[in-house]
Parts: sequence; C-alpha cells; structure tokens
Amino acid sequence: MFKFHLITKDGKARRGRIYTPHGVIETPVFMPVGTQGTVKAMLHKLLDEIGTQIILGNTYHLYLRPGTEIIKKAGGLHRFISWNKPILTDSGGYQVFSLAKGKFGNRKAKVKVSDEGVEFQDHLQGDKHFFTPEKVVEIQEIFGSDIMMPLDECVEYPVDKNYAEKALKRTINWLERSIKAKKREDQVLFGIVQGAFWKDLRKKAVEETLKFDEFLFGYSIGGLSVGEPKEIMYGMTEVVCELLPEKKPRYLMGVGKPEDILEAVERGVDMFDCVVPTRNARTGTLYTSQGVVDIRHSKWKEDFSPLDPECDCYTCRNFSKAYLRHLFVAEEISAYVLNTIHNLRFYLKMMEEVRKAIEEKRFKELKEKYLQRVKNKL
Amino acid sequence: MFKFHLITKDGKARRGRIYTPHGVIETPVFMPVGTQGTVKAMLHKLLDEIGTQIILGNTYHLYLRPGTEIIKKAGGLHRFISWNKPILTDSGGYQVFSLAKGKFGNRKAKVKVSDEGVEFQDHLQGDKHFFTPEKVVEIQEIFGSDIMMPLDECVEYPVDKNYAEKALKRTINWLERSIKAKKREDQVLFGIVQGAFWKDLRKKAVEETLKFDEFLFGYSIGGLSVGEPKEIMYGMTEVVCELLPEKKPRYLMGVGKPEDILEAVERGVDMFDCVVPTRNARTGTLYTSQGVVDIRHSKWKEDFSPLDPECDCYTCRNFSKAYLRHLFVAEEISAYVLNTIHNLRFYLKMMEEVRKAIEEKRFKELKEKYLQRVKNKL
Repeated sequence: MFKFHLITKDGKARRGRIYTPHGVIETPVFMPVGTQGTVKAMLHKLLDEIGTQIILGNTYHLYLRPGTEIIKKAGGLHRFISWNKPILTDSGGYQVFSLAKGKFGNRKAKVKVSDEGVEFQDHLQGDKHFFTPEKVVEIQEIFGSDIMMPLDECVEYPVDKNYAEKALKRTINWLERSIKAKKREDQVLFGIVQGAFWKDLRKKAVEETLKFDEFLFGYSIGGLSVGEPKEIMYGMTEVVCELLPEKKPRYLMGVGKPEDILEAVERGVDMFDCVVPTRNARTGTLYTSQGVVDIRHSKWKEDFSPLDPECDCYTCRNFSKAYLRHLFVAEEISAYVLNTIHNLRFYLKMMEEVRKAIEEKRFKELKEKYLQRVKNKL
Repeated sequence: MFKFHLITKDGKARRGRIYTPHGVIETPVFMPVGTQGTVKAMLHKLLDEIGTQIILGNTYHLYLRPGTEIIKKAGGLHRFISWNKPILTDSGGYQVFSLAKGKFGNRKAKVKVSDEGVEFQDHLQGDKHFFTPEKVVEIQEIFGSDIMMPLDECVEYPVDKNYAEKALKRTINWLERSIKAKKREDQVLFGIVQGAFWKDLRKKAVEETLKFDEFLFGYSIGGLSVGEPKEIMYGMTEVVCELLPEKKPRYLMGVGKPEDILEAVERGVDMFDCVVPTRNARTGTLYTSQGVVDIRHSKWKEDFSPLDPECDCYTCRNFSKAYLRHLFVAEEISAYVLNTIHNLRFYLKMMEEVRKAIEEKRFKELKEKYLQRVKNKL
C-alpha cells in the first residue's frame, strides 16, 4: 500500500516516488498547506490544475474547528473536505508550542509541557486542552490522513542546550508512545528528528529515532526555520540527512523559501511544506522567472505584460500585471486567488524542474538558475 | 453588429436574443456585477463555467480606479480585464447620487447637481469630480463597453413629486446630450426611463425618451428598487413596459431578488443586474432549489449532503453543507468563492429555465415554483 522508491540521485539530491492509498507522489515534492481543510484562497480544482500532488492539514486547527467529531462523522478528512489525493497531517505540536509566543490571535496563551503531554489554551475560545502522543495519533487516525506525524516538542531559537536535549529525549519518548498507540494500517507515521541547533544533538536525535526504524515510513526534520541563521538550518539539515537511511523519505517541516528548498534538496531532502507561497500571494509578493514582484508597486500600474511570461498558470496566461495590481489595490478577493494560483504554480513548477534536473544530473545548474531568480527584486 | 431579436412571448414575458460585437446574449438575462473589473470572489473562468453571458462594470468605480487613462492604454475594458464576452457599463449616476447617502465608506459626501451635470467628492480620496452627460459617454467610449448608459438623475424614495419631475426632465435633457456626444459605432446606448413612483411621470418619461428612439438600442428602467414597496416597483415596471416598443430590449436596473426578477419578466423585462447573489454569498445566504440557506447556522454542522441536490455547480457537485459551513465560520476565502459560484449559478440556471419556460408557454408555472423556493427558509 505504502512504498518509497528512490529512483536516482544527483550528488546527494534524490529523485523518488512515494506510493500511498490516495495516489503516487513524485519527490522532491512541495506540499501546499491546507491549514483548516482548504488551501487558503484556493479551490481543490485549482490545486489540481497546477499539479498539486498532496496537501497538508494542521491537526491543531482541524481538531479545534470543525472538530474531530464532525470529521469522524463525515468519514474522515478526505471525505469531509472532498480531496481525493494524499493528505499529510502534522502533530499540532508546532502550533501548540507557538501559542506561548502569541502566534495566533496576538494573545499569548499558557502552554504547559510535561513528560505526559502538553496542556494549552486554544486561540479561539481560550478553552483548555491536553495533547498526549496517544491523543494526537488518535485524532489523526480519525482524520485518516495518509501520512501522520507524532507529537514532538518544538523549541525556540535561541534555546538553552540542556533544555534542547531534554526536549529531544521527550520527543523520542513520545515517538515510542505514538508507535504503540497507532492502530490503522492504511496510514504511516514519520519519526521527527529534533536536536535544535547542535550537531551532536541532531546526531543523537537521529540515532535514537532510528531505533524505531521498522515502525517508521519516513523521517521529518523538525525545529528548523524558526528564526536561526540560514547556515545553521542548512548545516543541521546536512548532518541529519547524512545519517538517515537512504531508502526512506525525508521531510523538512515548514520549509521554506525557494532558496531554502533548493539548498535542502541538494542535501538530500524529499518533502517540503510552507505557507510562504500562499501567504506572500495574499500580501502581494509574487515569485516569477524574472525575479520577485511586489504587485502593489505603482511601477506596474501601466504594465500590460503578464506577471511571468514563462509561467503556464491561469493567472499568467490571462492577465496583466496592471490588472493584478488593480485588483490587489482594490482589495478584490480575486486578487488573492489569482496571486495564490501563481505563487503555488511557481513552487510546483520549480519542483517539477528539480525532479527533471536530478534525473538528468544537472541539479546544481538548475539550483543556480533559481537562486538568481529569487535574488532579483523586480 | 448589434441586433435584438424577439423570438417569442408567453403573455407579456419575452424570449429574445441580443447580438453584440462580443457575442450573443439570450434573454431574459441576468448580468453578474463586476464593479471594479472583476465579479467579486469570482474568476472569469468560473463565470464561464456557470454560463455567464455578459457582465456589468461600474463606470463610477472604474473611472476612479484604475482610472480611465489606464483602461485607455490597455486598449479598453475588455482587454484590461481580459474578458471577451459582452460588457454593459452603467453611467455612474446611481453611485454618484448614492454618495450623498454615505453609501460607500460610511461617509456622506457632497453631491451638487445642476442642469450642466453633477459634482461630487469620491469615496476613496475625497477628490472633487464633475460628471456631465458628455463626460460619461466619453469615459464609456474609452472603456468600449458593448452597452452603455447615459447619465441620469436618480431620486430617492420617498421623493417630492415636483422634484421627481424636474429630475425626469433633466434626465431627458442629459439623454439628448449623451446622444450628441456619442461617437463610436461599435457600442450602443440605452435610454433610461425615470419618473420615480408616479404612473403619470413614468408615462411622461417613456414618451419623452421615445422621441430619441432611433438613437437608442434599448430602454432601461431606472430609479426602482431603492426602498419603495414591492407593489410600487412592480406597478411602475408594468406601466413602463406597456409603453415601450416591442422590438427593443428592456433592462430593469439593479434588480433584484429572484422574486423581483420573475415579477419583472412577467411584465416584459429582458435584462437584470444585481449584487444580491454575490453579496449574499459573501454573507452566507444561499439560494437553493429547496429554499434559502443561512450557511452559518449550526444546524448544518453535521449535514454532509450537498447544498443543493438539484444544482450542477462545482460547489454543489463536490462539497457538503457541513464543509461549506466550516469554511465560512473559519473565514476562509474559499468559502466566499464557493458560495458565489453557487448563488450566481442559481440565478443563471433560473434564467435558463425562465427562457425555456417562455418558449414552452409555461412561464407562470415556473414562476410559482421559484416563488415557493425562495419563500422557504431552510
């Protein structure tokens, strides 16, 4: 039912294929984020049109709203949201630990972590909840997501090394409990490698996680892209990838900007998710083959050329920068939709080219091309 | 280039066809409102999918933003917004006279009307502008809309009869000036029949407008649906339709709810526009074959059936009421898009059925069916 096939490599960059009950995923893959059961400002059919292979759902958000009970009655998340391709759900850990920083709704909430689990007040009603590894698996088994994540403890940047090690151990302990709690055969679990910003901790995290290798379909690299310098992110990714088994997929959680994805692919990562393309679309920052466009800028007022002449998306094939700017300035909903179609297509097309380049052993060249593109501000 | 063909009638209800340089329009027709060059929360291709024949643009809004200059440089409104089907633009009169009531931006602006034209401060920057019949024609000739409206003076409900008569005369005078100002041959002008809420004034308005019949492609009925009782709206529509020539299309401006459209079709109206389906979609009020649904209501929380089992739109073919409610409560942009697709499809399908029913001489029966539907609150 589930299988990972490593097709070929170009240096450390990997070209693979994941088989799931809801379809095949060509890797390296970018997974658009469907936080609350919809990718923001998109429709499922628009996702299909731009070549989306899998979407991500956030356990924290879906658990709160519409709630596990409704998704259960609907017959699972795929049926509730009418999405028939693969779904990956996170563990909610990242969101819960973000609450303490006031990430949602600008209100800092109390988050209390213990070996048993994590207690938190939600950002909607302020109700108290308690997430344990067992509960998080149970929720995701109700969702029926193809790929699930175990509860992990995410630490901030910067963090005390002793605390980071404690969080690492807790994450391993929670992984073991998650594996024990898991019942469904038609879903797979990843192990999450923590270890913050120290190579020795990352190595230790891999070693400890690998002890459960037989129960894990793949490996996630967690705790990065949380404010640390890029070199640290790339360095940690490199250390972890070198120690992970070749035959299983690797997922760099929450990453990232195009340049981050390319650097991580080069180091051997297969899967990515990030809100950057969709969020930037809604604030007017658009990626193109010529460089990055701030569509709000008055310089586009009378520019009747397409946003990206090399892009094949609906937005670029039909509309001008002048029109897109007008819609954005006029705060039309269609601006957010058209921008999101484009930014996601830019990401997905980049991944298509990445896969082809790895097959043809010219990944480095492609990477340089894209790095130039995203460096250029138009 | 332009032609109106009255195909058949059922009582006073008319089945017709309008030929324009951008395509054929089957009537009676509902025209979705694309205020700022986009139908709110829609994409052009979604409009195509639900059978949109023509959209409306608002001269007032487009004149302010992006501005006439940009639309001119783009090569007209069709090219600026990349919409290849017919476009009707209003004269901006209704919006300008609404400014005095604080309709936009909750700030009452000064509006000064004279025989020469109307001076107003816009709702965006508060800048002063002066619209004359000539200027409004000039703007619409730059837009290149297929069907244009002459500047008219809209009065409120209630209004003093003497003032209403004065406004009527001014509207006729402005029509004459509009005709003189009109240059382009690939656009047509309608005459707007005012006369407020008195049958004798409406009759007089028709008589005066008909004097320019040779220059007019069709007739608009203005100044209704502004707060007057329904019977008055229907009564005025009836009086006007009885006096208008059979061989030209009739457009009831800004109308309306499904029941208003049906009553007006019965009295001989061919064309309609209204923000009701799109605005209601964004506030969660949805029309269905079973009745009107408030999608926010908790009663839909676990209702996994489609919004409207008889509807063929993307929303109804794919998603449940429970999912639509979830998206709406979660304030997802996709909620507004999915709701708008459905409400507009409901309107357009109703018009398709209206046309078929007129052809088959069973309009009254169809009207009763729809009146029952929209009366029923689910």
